Amino acid sequence: MGLVVQKFGGTSVGSVERIQKVAERINRTIREGNQVVVTVSAMGKTTDELVGLAKAITDRPSQREMDVLLTTGEQVTIALLSMALQQRGIKAHPMTGWQAGIHTDDVYGKARIESIDTERVRACLDQGEVVVVAGFQGISPDGHITTLGRGGSDTTAVALAAALQADRCEIFTDVTGVFTADPRLAPQARKLQEISFEEMLELANLGAGVLHPRSVECAMTHGVPLVVRSSFVDEEGTWVKEAAQMEEVWNVRGVAHDLQVARVKVLGLPNSSKTLTTLFSRLADAHINVDMIVTSEHARERIDVAFSVHENEWESAKEVIEGLKDELRYLEVLSETGLAKVSTVGAGMVTNPGVAAKMFTSLSEANIHIKMVSTSEIKISCVIAKEQATRAVKELHRAFGLDVEEALTAVPS
Amino acid sequence: MGLVVQKFGGTSVGSVERIQKVAERINRTIREGNQVVVTVSAMGKTTDELVGLAKAITDRPSQREMDVLLTTGEQVTIALLSMALQQRGIKAHPMTGWQAGIHTDDVYGKARIESIDTERVRACLDQGEVVVVAGFQGISPDGHITTLGRGGSDTTAVALAAALQADRCEIFTDVTGVFTADPRLAPQARKLQEISFEEMLELANLGAGVLHPRSVECAMTHGVPLVVRSSFVDEEGTWVKEAAQMEEVWNVRGVAHDLQVARVKVLGLPNSSKTLTTLFSRLADAHINVDMIVTSEHARERIDVAFSVHENEWESAKEVIEGLKDELRYLEVLSETGLAKVSTVGAGMVTNPGVAAKMFTSLSEANIHIKMVSTSEIKISCVIAKEQATRAVKELHRAFGLDVEEALTAVPS
Repeated sequence: MGLVVQKFGGTSVGSVERIQKVAERINRTIREGNQVVVTVSAMGKTTDELVGLAKAITDRPSQREMDVLLTTGEQVTIALLSMALQQRGIKAHPMTGWQAGIHTDDVYGKARIESIDTERVRACLDQGEVVVVAGFQGISPDGHITTLGRGGSDTTAVALAAALQADRCEIFTDVTGVFTADPRLAPQARKLQEISFEEMLELANLGAGVLHPRSVECAMTHGVPLVVRSSFVDEEGTWVKEAAQMEEVWNVRGVAHDLQVARVKVLGLPNSSKTLTTLFSRLADAHINVDMIVTSEHARERIDVAFSVHENEWESAKEVIEGLKDELRYLEVLSETGLAKVSTVGAGMVTNPGVAAKMFTSLSEANIHIKMVSTSEIKISCVIAKEQATRAVKELHRAFGLDVEEALTAVPS
Repeated sequence: MGLVVQKFGGTSVGSVERIQKVAERINRTIREGNQVVVTVSAMGKTTDELVGLAKAITDRPSQREMDVLLTTGEQVTIALLSMALQQRGIKAHPMTGWQAGIHTDDVYGKARIESIDTERVRACLDQGEVVVVAGFQGISPDGHITTLGRGGSDTTAVALAAALQADRCEIFTDVTGVFTADPRLAPQARKLQEISFEEMLELANLGAGVLHPRSVECAMTHGVPLVVRSSFVDEEGTWVKEAAQMEEVWNVRGVAHDLQVARVKVLGLPNSSKTLTTLFSRLADAHINVDMIVTSEHARERIDVAFSVHENEWESAKEVIEGLKDELRYLEVLSETGLAKVSTVGAGMVTNPGVAAKMFTSLSEANIHIKMVSTSEIKISCVIAKEQATRAVKELHRAFGLDVEEALTAVPS
């Protein structure tokens, strides 16, 4: 008998009819002889509606209270899904985050899971129950309700799978797997049968949107086999696993994009070792996730620093930097939003030095201006204007031979 | 410095604008130099919407899961109200039932508060915070979320006031106080300045709807001074207190009604001491609240028993009785719904034997047929057809001199 953790996102549980379908899907997994723990998100647009209510009350709702508010969304889903399972004769047991023993730190809105006390979940599994856990939420050391932030339900699922040493973690979503690019932008995009944790991590971080990077990180660290599959179509998904030899086969495995990028440039900073430490520590203290960082020395005593952030954090980032004016004595701040990031990802890229050149050439031939570049062993990212993103993705998908059908058949499985 | 518990019902927090008004009201109480604990219900129609979702999933949602579902309603309100208070510079601290230490039994949907661990609430009050507690909910000994059932938020407020030894408990509602009858049925009805716990209890039990009987019971037991007042109009409400000498002044203090009454008659039961015990124990086991009970012996060996229940419990009550067919070997069950109960209440009634006669006369002169009668020291109730209820309330209000303006000025205060 296997132990499977299944996660169903907001679209998958977006209506009463879909919740019934999810119950059917779980039922099938049980009939195949598995113990099942389910993690769910809030129904469809619930979170947006709750945020709307908060914004109607105050421009700056405090995050602690936002967490109390938002966690009701998943609580509704665990109740309804449990009822749907019980109607099918399945013993289902709904649990909120705190009931499932999900202990987090107290960074409201972006809490990190510190530990999971699985006693209660295990006791229910031992009694033959399906445990339905509210994703995205936990409890702080002081007993406050917390949320894990964006993509938190994926993280809940993977962390539960790790803590329970589950045989696999299945992430059900509205797409059938991980694609070589977003099919909405690049219709030629194709589904991968398998991808390495590292590649998935780059894709997730780059806004591929299928899996949250924190959940991929957690799966990689604990070696949880992960599969991304569709809630609506019954077909094989994409397995996310330890890297095989696939990197020899392709340079570029996929093209990712992120349409919510903003950039801040700090000009004329004092060129001392303390400058960068101060700058990025303060941004970290404000829980702002900085993505790309570019520095340039333009005279011996002064440097410029540019960094990109999610557009939602643009205002906060600017505030932090402005607050550092006296301390860092820089000359000027420039900032810009309405940007996008397009990236090529592939474990084989490190041994193929031509990839960067090919990427820059293909973007420049398409008259797309590159504002910022960042590279890692397995990815190259370029920041460009948001309105050029779709064209860039299509262009890169074609340029790196991902449009070609034959490439897919060579996927090692 | 006083400690005040304030409760705001679903209508009072029915919209963002109303939540802002509630925050203003609380702010005023704080500025008057009080510590404040607030209890709130779910916003307006939220509970109905959640019930609708559950019914769309399954005809018979299990009560445990219903409680998980319904408690999200109050959780939304505590978050929003806390934000509204914080926006006014007030330190507000939202707490769910379990966070506020409200321990109940595990009768889901109708749980009773067993104890309140006030440590966390007190710690917040000591730090100058306003504590905003989700009404209607608690936690079972096994750590499951429970709800207190109808009128549960009133009970939460009074129980908190008792546990915290608050100076008063203010129940804010959509009416300005306790009236001599429902003004929607009897336009001549007038507001009382003061009423005894006992009278209020009868009125509450009789469907006056302003306060839930459990909350009045709890206030009476613990001597919590209670005031019912309007969330919308700033005027003195009605104080519910220990009885004064008011009973000498009036026979009848008010006319109450309940429009959701059903009746079950069990005919030809064996006339043994065990019969009634069995019958009503089984109904209690099924958590059915039986209201009026009438028995009649029509031969030495057989008795008939008739009882009334809330119309929502009519089906369940019939099921229980039908399940007892073999055990009790009665002859027949007759049942009827679409009934109402009208009652006259007053602490002075016990010393005025003419009240019952006057009530029966005035109903019979209005051609209203009385199906069942029940009396206590301070009330007389008659079950009648629902469609005659409005006429009956008006008739009794007039007959007992409650229409007369002078009567009100004599209220002891």
